[in-house]
Amino acid sequence: MSTVDIKKVPLDRKAVARIVHDSEIDLRVASIREMNRIVNEIESELAIDFVRMEFGVPGLPTPDIAIDAEVEALRTKRLANRYAPFDGVPELKREAALFAKNFMNVDLPPSCCVPTVGAMQGGFLAQAVAGRMDPKKRTILFLHPSFPVNRQQTRFLGFNEDHIDFYDHRGDRLIEALDNRLAEGDVAAVFWSSPNNPSWIILTEDELEGMGRVLDKHSVIGIEDLAYFGMDFRKHYGVPGKPPYQPTIAKHCRRWFVLFSASKAFSYAGQRIGIAYIAPDLMEEESEYLKPFFSTKKVGYAFLHGGIYPTTASVPEGPQHGLIALMKAANNGRLDFTDLTREYGRRAEVMKRLFLENGFEIVYKDDLGVPLADGFFFTFSYPGYDQGFALVAEMLHYGISAITLDSAGSCRKEAVRGCVSLVHPTQFDDLQYRLRQFKQDHPPA
Amino acid sequence: MSTVDIKKVPLDRKAVARIVHDSEIDLRVASIREMNRIVNEIESELAIDFVRMEFGVPGLPTPDIAIDAEVEALRTKRLANRYAPFDGVPELKREAALFAKNFMNVDLPPSCCVPTVGAMQGGFLAQAVAGRMDPKKRTILFLHPSFPVNRQQTRFLGFNEDHIDFYDHRGDRLIEALDNRLAEGDVAAVFWSSPNNPSWIILTEDELEGMGRVLDKHSVIGIEDLAYFGMDFRKHYGVPGKPPYQPTIAKHCRRWFVLFSASKAFSYAGQRIGIAYIAPDLMEEESEYLKPFFSTKKVGYAFLHGGIYPTTASVPEGPQHGLIALMKAANNGRLDFTDLTREYGRRAEVMKRLFLENGFEIVYKDDLGVPLADGFFFTFSYPGYDQGFALVAEMLHYGISAITLDSAGSCRKEAVRGCVSLVHPTQFDDLQYRLRQFKQDHPPA
Repeated sequence: MSTVDIKKVPLDRKAVARIVHDSEIDLRVASIREMNRIVNEIESELAIDFVRMEFGVPGLPTPDIAIDAEVEALRTKRLANRYAPFDGVPELKREAALFAKNFMNVDLPPSCCVPTVGAMQGGFLAQAVAGRMDPKKRTILFLHPSFPVNRQQTRFLGFNEDHIDFYDHRGDRLIEALDNRLAEGDVAAVFWSSPNNPSWIILTEDELEGMGRVLDKHSVIGIEDLAYFGMDFRKHYGVPGKPPYQPTIAKHCRRWFVLFSASKAFSYAGQRIGIAYIAPDLMEEESEYLKPFFSTKKVGYAFLHGGIYPTTASVPEGPQHGLIALMKAANNGRLDFTDLTREYGRRAEVMKRLFLENGFEIVYKDDLGVPLADGFFFTFSYPGYDQGFALVAEMLHYGISAITLDSAGSCRKEAVRGCVSLVHPTQFDDLQYRLRQFKQDHPPA
Repeated sequence: MSTVDIKKVPLDRKAVARIVHDSEIDLRVASIREMNRIVNEIESELAIDFVRMEFGVPGLPTPDIAIDAEVEALRTKRLANRYAPFDGVPELKREAALFAKNFMNVDLPPSCCVPTVGAMQGGFLAQAVAGRMDPKKRTILFLHPSFPVNRQQTRFLGFNEDHIDFYDHRGDRLIEALDNRLAEGDVAAVFWSSPNNPSWIILTEDELEGMGRVLDKHSVIGIEDLAYFGMDFRKHYGVPGKPPYQPTIAKHCRRWFVLFSASKAFSYAGQRIGIAYIAPDLMEEESEYLKPFFSTKKVGYAFLHGGIYPTTASVPEGPQHGLIALMKAANNGRLDFTDLTREYGRRAEVMKRLFLENGFEIVYKDDLGVPLADGFFFTFSYPGYDQGFALVAEMLHYGISAITLDSAGSCRKEAVRGCVSLVHPTQFDDLQYRLRQFKQDHPPA
């Protein structure tokens, strides 16, 4: 399909407004998928290409090494007809344990490395177990901003949720706020992602140390979502067995679930596979209160027999073999997976500059004074727009799509999240033009 | 590995007893997986091949048509890096709707056909939604015997469970018992499988009609597990658009979840894919009580956005394309999938005869006077053994493995389940020899 050059034919404001109106989607509360639909409609009706920053999906191909291994599992090993073990293919558990050692410097046995249908299933089951160990502790505390679907998991499970926002809580303030909140005694687990979706703030080793200390102090479980494993491109985490290592709460407290996702780190989102790393101590822990729900007192059994088994029976065989191949290549030093995803950092560097040059501001902008890493997401606002959804709506008229931070629970109502993954460098020139037009039409006060 | 011929060298009773003892597994309550482990150990230590009837896994290869489609999706379409839509790949939803029309004569739109990570995820989410529509209705009523993991789902969700046993409830007695139980007003859904795991009883069209009537009368949802779709080999269900059709509750009431599994019908267990068919009326139904758990009042949205999304985000792409190819071939009449699984029926016919000739009895033995179909499972007992676990333990000494019906909630404590899928016809001679030995050593009174 040939598309219109936006530099020659400006976008028809009325047509865009009509499409948004006819979609019956309220931009105030639009989900990513809904925003997606609106942008698809504008693109097809007006024959233009958007700079698409709304969707946090991998923009890189899955490494062939994974595809080859899946094909071998299906064609040569002919595994499609048999059930995989519900605690995971043993070879994957072994590689996952090696991977933890090589890239996080964390020692744990293969039995504590559990394949899941995406980190999504890991987060769901981690909460399900954590929230049922003590009837006094039925709150999941989120460090905001956060991925909205993790909070949907909390609701599915019938637990309470609360939050602390990174925006005004970093460093000692974060630890102090956490300490105070956990002292109330109702929190079962604290859930966060770092690198953070959507703000791309990254917790420092000191912060993790402090968090671990207060988690153990109050007997609260840490659930750390490492969906963007190795993607702090200020560091180079891709060399097996050599520092620096991916920072993780696993080094700093006794009771944790650490969720690895193959979706972004290995560009493998469609096949839905992750690893739930479970602290060895926690794996063996027992609680009478688990029994009615999981038919066992033991956390590890509850997660596996009482959790994985009744939800999906196991992770599909094919993707397990794909991940075996990827982790093996990373463990052997044949695949530096951080080299692949570093492309996102290069894109973010240019794109953030273009936004800043044209009057935009970065909302979540540093890690305790250190400039934020360039990565998968960044957050921005524009002078005069104190509601993110209004900025998102206005930018649609310039062929740029993004989502608000509102659904992520952020306290910054003016903030918008942009994802760099689907913006190819060949579009940067276009992006620059569009941002300039935006600035021209909305001169900052 | 060369194995010992049991006809020449009888099994060492003491060695078998020692291995069972050392396993520390209590045969009274042994799960399938535990029984599996014991048998593996005996096989390897004594170098013999068991007649393995404990494990209900497909014994047939996955059709190449599925493997080819998965490989194409991965290699040619390169879909592994992108997220699948969480309500399913549109083409699969369309083929699944056609499949429902062609093989069940049920009309429903593609939007009511939802791919799931195995029928397991479908059963989990169907219960999750059904059990939260009305706070007065928090009981799942199982028609026993039943697959134990479906009851584990009920426990995970914190609902109550109750049961009615098919053994003494068929035909009018079943409908009457159901009517009386549902009249108590606390039942959210009735859950059953037909063909039934583990008894292989199959509900008649009349029974389904009566069940549908009382389900609607009491506003209770039917959750029908069709894991053994098309496998009543007394009929031929494999011709698209032509009767006879797979009987289903979907023809007989207004509110149902019907769970299709590709695991057995298409020998595709390892890749974990099924379809949850949701009644169009139910899909649109609303309940205020759903909202705290699923962020929506509507059943369909609750299942998808509030259920599939936070548990696994979607079904992996590859298996969705495998199932598209299988369903398309079935819909076009190019693949009579019931011809493939009919092999199980042929095996069951011989094996049941061998058991009967050697003093065993079939426990669940007819469908309202009509002899039970020969299929994936059959149930048996032996005179003088009033505890199934004792019979299972004794049969280990003859190189035959099976599991008790106890974990399936059956009221028949003497009953044992045998699965035919892993017993190749070349083993029939061996099976006959072993059963004769058993009979010789345990002459029926």
